Amino acid sequence: MSEIHITLPDGSVRQYPKGVTAHEIALSISEGLARNIIAAKVNGMVIETGRAITEDSHVSLLKWDDKEGKSTFWHSSAHLLAEALEALYPGVKFGIGPAIDSGFYYDIDFGDYKFTSEDFAKLEAKMLELAKQENAYTRKQVSKAEALEYFTQKGDPYKIELINELNDGEITFYHQGNFTDLCRGPHLPHTGYIKAVKILSLAGAYWRGDEKNKQLTRIYGITFPKKSELDAHMQMLEEAKKRDHRLLGKELEIFAFDDDVGPGLPLWLPKGAAIIELLEAFAKKTEKEAGYMRVKSPHIAKESMYIKSGHLPYYADSMFPPMELDGINYYLKAMNCPHHHKIFAATPKSHRDLPVRYAEYGTCYRYEQSGELFGLMRVRSLQMNDAHIYCTKAQFESEFKAVNALYLKYFKVFGIDKYVMRFSKHDPKKLGQKYINSPELWKETEEMVRNVLIKSGIPYIEVEDEAAFYGPKIDIQIWSAIGREFTLATNQVDFAQAERFDLYFINEKSEKERPLILHRAPLSTHERFIGFLLEHYAGKFPLWLNPEQVMILPISEKYQEYSEKVLNILKNHDIRALIDDRSEKTGKKIRDAELKRVPLMLILGEKEQSDNTVTVRKQGGEDLGSMTVEAFAAYVNSEIEKQLN
Amino acid sequence: MSEIHITLPDGSVRQYPKGVTAHEIALSISEGLARNIIAAKVNGMVIETGRAITEDSHVSLLKWDDKEGKSTFWHSSAHLLAEALEALYPGVKFGIGPAIDSGFYYDIDFGDYKFTSEDFAKLEAKMLELAKQENAYTRKQVSKAEALEYFTQKGDPYKIELINELNDGEITFYHQGNFTDLCRGPHLPHTGYIKAVKILSLAGAYWRGDEKNKQLTRIYGITFPKKSELDAHMQMLEEAKKRDHRLLGKELEIFAFDDDVGPGLPLWLPKGAAIIELLEAFAKKTEKEAGYMRVKSPHIAKESMYIKSGHLPYYADSMFPPMELDGINYYLKAMNCPHHHKIFAATPKSHRDLPVRYAEYGTCYRYEQSGELFGLMRVRSLQMNDAHIYCTKAQFESEFKAVNALYLKYFKVFGIDKYVMRFSKHDPKKLGQKYINSPELWKETEEMVRNVLIKSGIPYIEVEDEAAFYGPKIDIQIWSAIGREFTLATNQVDFAQAERFDLYFINEKSEKERPLILHRAPLSTHERFIGFLLEHYAGKFPLWLNPEQVMILPISEKYQEYSEKVLNILKNHDIRALIDDRSEKTGKKIRDAELKRVPLMLILGEKEQSDNTVTVRKQGGEDLGSMTVEAFAAYVNSEIEKQLN
Repeated sequence: MSEIHITLPDGSVRQYPKGVTAHEIALSISEGLARNIIAAKVNGMVIETGRAITEDSHVSLLKWDDKEGKSTFWHSSAHLLAEALEALYPGVKFGIGPAIDSGFYYDIDFGDYKFTSEDFAKLEAKMLELAKQENAYTRKQVSKAEALEYFTQKGDPYKIELINELNDGEITFYHQGNFTDLCRGPHLPHTGYIKAVKILSLAGAYWRGDEKNKQLTRIYGITFPKKSELDAHMQMLEEAKKRDHRLLGKELEIFAFDDDVGPGLPLWLPKGAAIIELLEAFAKKTEKEAGYMRVKSPHIAKESMYIKSGHLPYYADSMFPPMELDGINYYLKAMNCPHHHKIFAATPKSHRDLPVRYAEYGTCYRYEQSGELFGLMRVRSLQMNDAHIYCTKAQFESEFKAVNALYLKYFKVFGIDKYVMRFSKHDPKKLGQKYINSPELWKETEEMVRNVLIKSGIPYIEVEDEAAFYGPKIDIQIWSAIGREFTLATNQVDFAQAERFDLYFINEKSEKERPLILHRAPLSTHERFIGFLLEHYAGKFPLWLNPEQVMILPISEKYQEYSEKVLNILKNHDIRALIDDRSEKTGKKIRDAELKRVPLMLILGEKEQSDNTVTVRKQGGEDLGSMTVEAFAAYVNSEIEKQLN
Repeated sequence: MSEIHITLPDGSVRQYPKGVTAHEIALSISEGLARNIIAAKVNGMVIETGRAITEDSHVSLLKWDDKEGKSTFWHSSAHLLAEALEALYPGVKFGIGPAIDSGFYYDIDFGDYKFTSEDFAKLEAKMLELAKQENAYTRKQVSKAEALEYFTQKGDPYKIELINELNDGEITFYHQGNFTDLCRGPHLPHTGYIKAVKILSLAGAYWRGDEKNKQLTRIYGITFPKKSELDAHMQMLEEAKKRDHRLLGKELEIFAFDDDVGPGLPLWLPKGAAIIELLEAFAKKTEKEAGYMRVKSPHIAKESMYIKSGHLPYYADSMFPPMELDGINYYLKAMNCPHHHKIFAATPKSHRDLPVRYAEYGTCYRYEQSGELFGLMRVRSLQMNDAHIYCTKAQFESEFKAVNALYLKYFKVFGIDKYVMRFSKHDPKKLGQKYINSPELWKETEEMVRNVLIKSGIPYIEVEDEAAFYGPKIDIQIWSAIGREFTLATNQVDFAQAERFDLYFINEKSEKERPLILHRAPLSTHERFIGFLLEHYAGKFPLWLNPEQVMILPISEKYQEYSEKVLNILKNHDIRALIDDRSEKTGKKIRDAELKRVPLMLILGEKEQSDNTVTVRKQGGEDLGSMTVEAFAAYVNSEIEKQLN
């Protein structure tokens, strides 16, 4: 048979000759598309646009905007970097050179040469010169003997070490211009796709991460298909540096780390704790309105609980080590689910009780390697905006919809304009292996999830074969105000835990029935979310969330008493205000209040005192003029009302 | 010199001949006093009222109402029990027989005889018979040889084992009627003080707590100086049984334990968590008004932190065992103080910043032996109403006063009418050993503490030589509605931790100065306090604290819609209401709402619907008549207002 069926992501099926390439498929749709595709996903595997497709397949054409498109682009850029280095510094040896979340790196052994940031410009220029040659990336299967022969001749011990660990028959080389690398691919059609190059930074990296090995030079870089995109990216990085949550967190006294407490374990200073309290109050109110009940569980449990849940032994590396007590191992909880399941099981449930929605800001502890820890973004203690919903199959769709509505509400309140839900599905071929063997439940719930996503108009993408073991999963990606991407949280459907914990309700037929379980954490962890907000708001927390809403600035000591009167009125309106009663000039006090990112300043002098008014200055300088204290309080509360609705 | 000076607790000094007894001192004051004193505390040691006092001494005359008075009374009662047993069951062997918090016990080896509750009446009668003989308790110093000789003759292997561990010259016997015991004393003047006896229960107890030893029969009893006091006590026990917080906690679905989570680690079900949330909201509001700032700290820290704080190695037995991570031991926190000290140290402090008051509902973990665990009263996880106040010496008095004012406010809100503060002071002779060597600070702060206690009119007692290592301490004892005593919390002054953690502020002279630290936790832990409240309220939580304030009872399905309308109005007034929409008779619904201890019920039928009213029934049956929903909401909120102020 010389014809094959290609199923595209929209479900349409087209016929092509056997051996058709993704490039040809794209061309058959439009020339513009063909120009923009970088790689293709064929039956779950990413391959080059020029590779022959020889059987009926599901095909997605990957562009720059696709995660795997970018990843292919940057992987090819790492090879281009290597080619440029070899041209400039003959004899350098190569470690590994993967794509990462934002660009790529290559680990290099420069021998005696000391490569520094002085060399960056020359390297960038060479890369662009080679890119312009539009050298094709070509793939070649080689035998293990051939592979070893090539790198022995070239004299690259790192590649030889890698080849020795591979099986004969599975080894491929990729070649472009004058450079050949050991690589699984896939790659761009040719180097000409790369139009803009930036070498970002250097770091030391032990070969294979082992400090007993030689330290190589890791070169980080990023590339783009357009110069303008590089410029935007560099500007974003510049802005991100100013908004670095670690610096802002210290400057604004939000959190601190301490050597005696331990790495990855932030201490929340009063302003940070105030933000946490405000976030929790907001979440609790929202969740109460949405019919959640709060529960409270300890931070530890016996080993038997985590064996039951399946976290042990598989997840042990991500958990803190056990504490042995009376001969029994106890673990710090790395997740709240098992505790909530136990609470569900503690009292009998009937179908009339469902859906049961348990919410808890439970602090979990996860082990991250010291090297992986990063400010609030990668920590070991996690205060989670957690909840678990136990429902019947019939209730699932409306519950899932309500969870999505919560997300949308939160996005609006926090000014998150760009977001996408990544809907990870199972692969029917892997039922009973990678996925729990309940084909009907998978089909039903995936269909329901898709329906809700479509109906609620949330932007989403579907991803094959990335679901959790126990059900479909949604990762929420959001972008901060400066365009940086964060993975916020996960929504998960769970068919497995109810069985493992023997959870049931008595259904209308008076039979025991397992509930479906939804895991959700829209506000992520306090750590990650406040880290995100610090960047997103550049430290300028909005009025409702700012621990210091109003700074009262008496222009001299004479107005101290009046300032205190104003302060008390504001307190009675639940407004968080402070008096700056230092004997400083008003200009200095304003500058300091700006540095503390206080949203509103009240300037109080003779006129204000005699008129019983306040003169209002907004953060940044806008003058709102004079008004009575009561009018100001009403203004503050109406602003907050607007921000929260 | 044949005259000595006796200093009484009120500070007055009297002269007596050398060798005077406490009984004679009491007689010199009043005959009534002499009749009522049970023992005396002489220079910190409790002795018999008949013992000669041979040097200048501080003397407290102990009555039944004094803790040590009761303890002496019950210790003597244990000897009386033993005498009665020996009379009734010749040849029984005796283990140990101490006084406990509420009565006494004796561990008995009955040989082949099976002692059961059937024997209680006979035993009580024999004890009363012997008591009436008014046999004197007499003390005799014996040599080790004599002591061994006596018990060898008598054939009591347990006493022999005990004697063998004692030093010659330190052994005393006590004798009354026909019974002699190895004992340090002290004891009552004679058995006639004991007017009422109750044998309470039996338990098995391994000799010396070691399960490899023989199991003895532990007999628990209690005695009183008046029959009426025994009756009141038995009635209290009866009532306490009905109010057992473990039973109420289960019945009302407040908390649960689970084998896979672990003993002493309660899971808080939705109603329990709701009570916790309400308590915390109340505490946070109160603390905010009192100028506290909230902070948040992880539940673990490195070993080095607890070595710095001095908790390790001394307190290690009360802590959970360590978790080893990257070669470093981490511990679950058993207290929040060190974390708060680190937060204090994280940013520079000037005298203008003090007092700094850090509050946190931090969950701590303490190891209690399985056998010691008891419902919510003895647990391993403790959610503490914790705060630490860092202040100057000049601020100490007003800070301490403010903390006491908080206590009084809480006592009022929770209807705690009987309470006493136990003010534990240092012993100047032990400075530098048991107590930190800052004589001036001890004197000053103890004086300030006393002044505040006197001025605020709080009932208190002073106790010598029971302070903490680092400063004077106040234990707060409260009594539940049925007269059971609980130790609620501790206030502590701390001179030591600021030094250990190098905490300082810059004083007005621009020098570094150590702050004083106050530890306080007026609402104790959620575990202990909610346990107390369950008994105190017999599960009938007051309106403001009840997770379910109002139960709406439509008298038939026809009024479901109207019920929902009422529910929504109540929700808009922040009133927690539920509808009982089961198709049950109204009488049954009322009974069930009573069982759930719901404070208010709304009965809705034709008349209510057409008049737009509700008919209100209070828990217990009081009929509040009909009113509009708005009037009812106003009633609820004014009741809550009254309860909280």
